[in-house]
Amino acid sequence: MAETQHDTIRAVEWTPEGLSLLDQRALPLKHEHVLLEDAAGVADAIRDMVVRGAPAIGVTAAYGVVLAARARYARAPATWKQDIEQDLQLLAASRPTAVNLFWALEHMRALIKSLCSGSQQSIQSSSKSPLPQAGEGRGEGLAGGNRQGSAAGAAVSGDPVPALLAEARKIHDEDIAANRRMGELGAALIEARGVVLTHCNTGSLATGGYGTALGVIRSAYAAGKVERVYADETRPWLQGARLTAWELVQDRIPVTVLADGAAAHLMKQGGVTWAIVGSDRIAGNGDVANKIGTYSLAVAARHHGVKFMVVAPTTTVDMKINSGAEIHIENRSPEEVLSLGGQRVAAPGAEAWNPSFDVTPADLVDAIVTERGVVTQPNAAKMAALMES
Amino acid sequence: MAETQHDTIRAVEWTPEGLSLLDQRALPLKHEHVLLEDAAGVADAIRDMVVRGAPAIGVTAAYGVVLAARARYARAPATWKQDIEQDLQLLAASRPTAVNLFWALEHMRALIKSLCSGSQQSIQSSSKSPLPQAGEGRGEGLAGGNRQGSAAGAAVSGDPVPALLAEARKIHDEDIAANRRMGELGAALIEARGVVLTHCNTGSLATGGYGTALGVIRSAYAAGKVERVYADETRPWLQGARLTAWELVQDRIPVTVLADGAAAHLMKQGGVTWAIVGSDRIAGNGDVANKIGTYSLAVAARHHGVKFMVVAPTTTVDMKINSGAEIHIENRSPEEVLSLGGQRVAAPGAEAWNPSFDVTPADLVDAIVTERGVVTQPNAAKMAALMES
Repeated sequence: MAETQHDTIRAVEWTPEGLSLLDQRALPLKHEHVLLEDAAGVADAIRDMVVRGAPAIGVTAAYGVVLAARARYARAPATWKQDIEQDLQLLAASRPTAVNLFWALEHMRALIKSLCSGSQQSIQSSSKSPLPQAGEGRGEGLAGGNRQGSAAGAAVSGDPVPALLAEARKIHDEDIAANRRMGELGAALIEARGVVLTHCNTGSLATGGYGTALGVIRSAYAAGKVERVYADETRPWLQGARLTAWELVQDRIPVTVLADGAAAHLMKQGGVTWAIVGSDRIAGNGDVANKIGTYSLAVAARHHGVKFMVVAPTTTVDMKINSGAEIHIENRSPEEVLSLGGQRVAAPGAEAWNPSFDVTPADLVDAIVTERGVVTQPNAAKMAALMES
Repeated sequence: MAETQHDTIRAVEWTPEGLSLLDQRALPLKHEHVLLEDAAGVADAIRDMVVRGAPAIGVTAAYGVVLAARARYARAPATWKQDIEQDLQLLAASRPTAVNLFWALEHMRALIKSLCSGSQQSIQSSSKSPLPQAGEGRGEGLAGGNRQGSAAGAAVSGDPVPALLAEARKIHDEDIAANRRMGELGAALIEARGVVLTHCNTGSLATGGYGTALGVIRSAYAAGKVERVYADETRPWLQGARLTAWELVQDRIPVTVLADGAAAHLMKQGGVTWAIVGSDRIAGNGDVANKIGTYSLAVAARHHGVKFMVVAPTTTVDMKINSGAEIHIENRSPEEVLSLGGQRVAAPGAEAWNPSFDVTPADLVDAIVTERGVVTQPNAAKMAALMES
């Protein structure tokens, strides 16, 4: 399959020894893995940014619960289900703003509760808990196999680890499957061959694998629709220069890094077919919160007639908020702007404004691509229809 | 005078010992001056970016000619006028793309030629040579005094240094006077009190003093029209974070640095009255070449109804080019984007696109402010009328 040539990276991998994370702090200069054997180590790794990207953090936390259960069950088989709550709380505190982290922990907690009863009945009930990006009906042959089957097989044996590991793997596999599905759907929107522009890192490093916006780019490249990817360096954290460029080089997709301020000038020169980005949160009307700089890109895209695509699983859609105006934008430390590589660059006395996200209104978005389908020219009615599908 | 409180910095200063330059490579961490006593030292300082900004380079080169004349005349009073040509060529080679550098050197060369004749007549003739940003009729009491008078007084004495020094000082003073005039004209365009947004460094550091776009901001701040300046950090060279923030802190004007990609998000929040930038070259139709990222800012400003002001002396206007399409955009080294502070940040194998400038079309510009007057909604006819005035 052509696309596997362009999909070789996994940032989160379960191994017989424990959970292996690709250390994203060291990239691209060093390619190092961290092996984690307990929940405290996983919490530290999330807090210290060894792993980043909301979907990748969710998957990591799920495996962290498996490590916690292994230790708790070995130490106290009679009380592990109570004892593990402490680990769940530790993991939850590691990145308090990450929605996917809480989702994954709630999901694992529900399975743990169902294991308490020891009955297959309750496990099936747990599997009805929210799994909004699950790949129902996709028929893509997930490596994790059938959920009820794998969880049930373990539940009756006493040792909770096989059931929890199967569940974590399923969360992981379903994330990748959703990304592949979005990749297909998004790539189908690209008509002419040309260059695409992206922002931040939305790839294998930020997800269970394959990526959201970078997943679409992988699929489109494999289909011969992308000549080259222009990657905004994405100040202040440089996720584009450090991570997106690394991923694409590894996967032999031609990539050119540019300063964020040069993107409009690139579009003016012509040849850019789509700007393709991810999202941290999508409001009920299709407004899109994403890494700072996304909105600037959307404004420039509209000015130049370049189409603008947002790629995100339906777990990102928050129907409880009506518009982007309700999305709280966190300001990060001014030091991220005032310093570079640990060295102060701006004068003492200068202030900095460092919003972590911005909101792109739905009317600047040409397509929102989810694993459930594509919404073009998004609005509240279309988003509601998607989410009810 | 209120505005002098906010105008304390001079990057280029003549002293009895020689030419003193504020070392802009060390800013803002160190505030160091370099004392130059000969033309070779001045050429090195220009080449090595001790001084930057086209008007500042022009002024520096003019003083470099004074240092050259001092040495050549002391060594060989009979042949100094021939010998100094070597120094002029050395200075010209120090920054081959700087228009102001050549303009200043041509101007000094014309005066040297006139000094050969020893007659006051020819000096007056030399003073008719192009001095397009001269402050004729401004009546601002320039420190350099009357040009014909000061140059003529020296020409008849044999020692060329007083005449050349008077001329270099006049070039310097006229640059500052032009900037002050632009400051007044530009500030008058700002109606409501609010925040302004700027890009790159266009201040005292980049000019003889006071600045172009930052000169307008200084004048507007002194007039109570500016609450705070938002300064794009201006990747890849960070002139905004390193230099503009430093200047404004020194002059007690509140400044907030932001990532270039955050500017559109700032405008969306409201309160930004004007985006104010400088220019490296303005075409005959009012298209504006300036530091990369300017065009992105102009597109965002238009999208949000924020007005866009370009501040530049008429020396910047090139009536020989009809539109921005004729302006060649130099690509600088990819390393400036791929590395930060000398440390590689992007993966080996990643390419980078690093245009040094972009072109903002005239129809995105609300006002071009020059020392001769303001052109609103610029076009070819209005630019021609300005240049003929």
